[in-house]
Amino acid sequence: MGYERKGIAAMHGYVPGKQPVSPDVIKLNTNENPYPPSPAVMQAIHAVPPEALRKYPSPAADGFRSTAAKLHGVTMENVVATNGGDELLRMAIATFVEPGQPIGTIEPSYSLYPVLAEAHGSRVFHLDLEEDFSVPEGAAAKMNEAGVNLLFIVCPHAPSGQLTSVPQLAAIARDFKGVVLVDEAYVDFVDPALAHDAVELVREHDNVLLLRTLSKGYSLAGLRFGYGLGAASLIEPMLWKTRDSYNVDALAQAAATAALEDRAYSVDTWKRVRAERVRLREALMELGFRVHPSQSNFLLAHVPAGARARAMRDGLETQGLLVRYFDAPRIDDALRITVGTPEQNDKLLAALRVILAAV
Amino acid sequence: MGYERKGIAAMHGYVPGKQPVSPDVIKLNTNENPYPPSPAVMQAIHAVPPEALRKYPSPAADGFRSTAAKLHGVTMENVVATNGGDELLRMAIATFVEPGQPIGTIEPSYSLYPVLAEAHGSRVFHLDLEEDFSVPEGAAAKMNEAGVNLLFIVCPHAPSGQLTSVPQLAAIARDFKGVVLVDEAYVDFVDPALAHDAVELVREHDNVLLLRTLSKGYSLAGLRFGYGLGAASLIEPMLWKTRDSYNVDALAQAAATAALEDRAYSVDTWKRVRAERVRLREALMELGFRVHPSQSNFLLAHVPAGARARAMRDGLETQGLLVRYFDAPRIDDALRITVGTPEQNDKLLAALRVILAAV
Repeated sequence: MGYERKGIAAMHGYVPGKQPVSPDVIKLNTNENPYPPSPAVMQAIHAVPPEALRKYPSPAADGFRSTAAKLHGVTMENVVATNGGDELLRMAIATFVEPGQPIGTIEPSYSLYPVLAEAHGSRVFHLDLEEDFSVPEGAAAKMNEAGVNLLFIVCPHAPSGQLTSVPQLAAIARDFKGVVLVDEAYVDFVDPALAHDAVELVREHDNVLLLRTLSKGYSLAGLRFGYGLGAASLIEPMLWKTRDSYNVDALAQAAATAALEDRAYSVDTWKRVRAERVRLREALMELGFRVHPSQSNFLLAHVPAGARARAMRDGLETQGLLVRYFDAPRIDDALRITVGTPEQNDKLLAALRVILAAV
Repeated sequence: MGYERKGIAAMHGYVPGKQPVSPDVIKLNTNENPYPPSPAVMQAIHAVPPEALRKYPSPAADGFRSTAAKLHGVTMENVVATNGGDELLRMAIATFVEPGQPIGTIEPSYSLYPVLAEAHGSRVFHLDLEEDFSVPEGAAAKMNEAGVNLLFIVCPHAPSGQLTSVPQLAAIARDFKGVVLVDEAYVDFVDPALAHDAVELVREHDNVLLLRTLSKGYSLAGLRFGYGLGAASLIEPMLWKTRDSYNVDALAQAAATAALEDRAYSVDTWKRVRAERVRLREALMELGFRVHPSQSNFLLAHVPAGARARAMRDGLETQGLLVRYFDAPRIDDALRITVGTPEQNDKLLAALRVILAAV
């Protein structure tokens, strides 16, 4: 008999991936960039004077928003800075969804969405992705019918790495009557040859909200910094009403701004991750895994016949190698493996060879 | 015709105090500690390695919670770390208040409360403080009658600085059927001679939630770090259900832990602020202001007869001196003045003397 709301008492919280303290563990479980953040980021942090900590920060992170706007060819009014991408997800729900109104997802998807929905007092209306994890035809119409006003689309998709093209997203934005939140947490790892840039949707559709984060692409998961891009009319209520009044701190604002300004450093890490993504995928397929083509910094690898994914995850963990396993439909025979450095990937492959020899 | 919920479209956002960029401005408007944060805090920030930013932080800030628990003589399960005290306010509403259920305040009070209530889809049920800004008799019973499940009490009170004693708070906790959130944002500035320590309430009442922040006492408004103290059963749903999964970043965790560990440094700043609080109050009274006795780091000063508070605020601003004016009942004839350094207070007093000579 606690004091919390009934819905909160009944719900289960989100279970984050393991975050071990030991530096010897090879973490290929939560999709961090394997390379360190830019030295310019560290310099920016060290240059923050005590006076900037003593006083309140810029409430809406004006310096960062200006830098992000320039990078994406939009205005500051199209940008809201958030305490990690997760905060944007929660804020979007608080802003656009009446408690009780369903939230739309296309499954499998980020396991945080239903947790946020439940905390808000809403249920999830979900469709299933196609066999190849692409978005099914007619998804927007079905979401409209179900009374959904906020639809989450992960692009590139997690945990498969499947990319939904900008024209496909545009068609959904056109047909859907509510807000389409495109969760682009992993977009930095898309092959530049595809010229994939969803920011044009923000200029053409007033219902598209893009989620960006510095956690993956910019090697700053520890910093908790994300941002939303959208039409000014879409951003305005989050920026000035539902956002906590000082939601990103002075250190994070300085570091995040420096990260975008030294984007060239991170672009190089993305290139290295993409090269390893190709090599790791081929090596896993040689070992008998079925591996989806991925435009992200992870691979969804269905284990070879005879092997069990959960046991394989546990076996790797005993050797200090963390990968992610999801006890969920369609993916419970697979491991989600973050693309590491060449050395880390080699260690993973060696450990998998040993495990598979014993199957 | 935006996409946001009707309640969000209709509401007005919170207006933070001015945060000017110029270092020449004397900011006595948002209750920052006038002294810089501890050098140990800066060292802790500089010691955070790139690897700690690359990876996700401790999801629930375990290191900080352990340090805070030790300081207050409670366990880690009694502590939740938040992205500023404001995040705890929002989380408490999301956790304990059904949308539509009223939130209780005793006015005048922190102008953010009604904004958070409105964003949640709730109205505010308020009582009025007594003439001396003390909590009225029978407040708990009236809140019970109104169906309130979350009651905010600011202690020491803002903007008056009035302290509600621990026995008074205990009586409210005993009589009130819901959760009493005691907003202790300014508690560090209470005279130690009063031996005021509300943490004992946490051990004896399962419905008391204390809000602490490092913004004021620890000179870290720019860091955005607060925490809640309460019974484990009260903290649990916030810690594991309604909190964003990684709500405080690695830099903030390191800095906040260092701040508590070097508490002695901040204790000395509190002593200096208290000494100036006495001197500034007496000087203001000599100028004809009516000034409430304050246990906080600010003074509520009703302007002398013939003077107008708003005009005085504007006059000070033209001289580079910021103080706070509230266009609200009972306090619209007053200025809320943060206690600054002796030099800052002298400048304020000199400017007031000039302004008053012209009235």
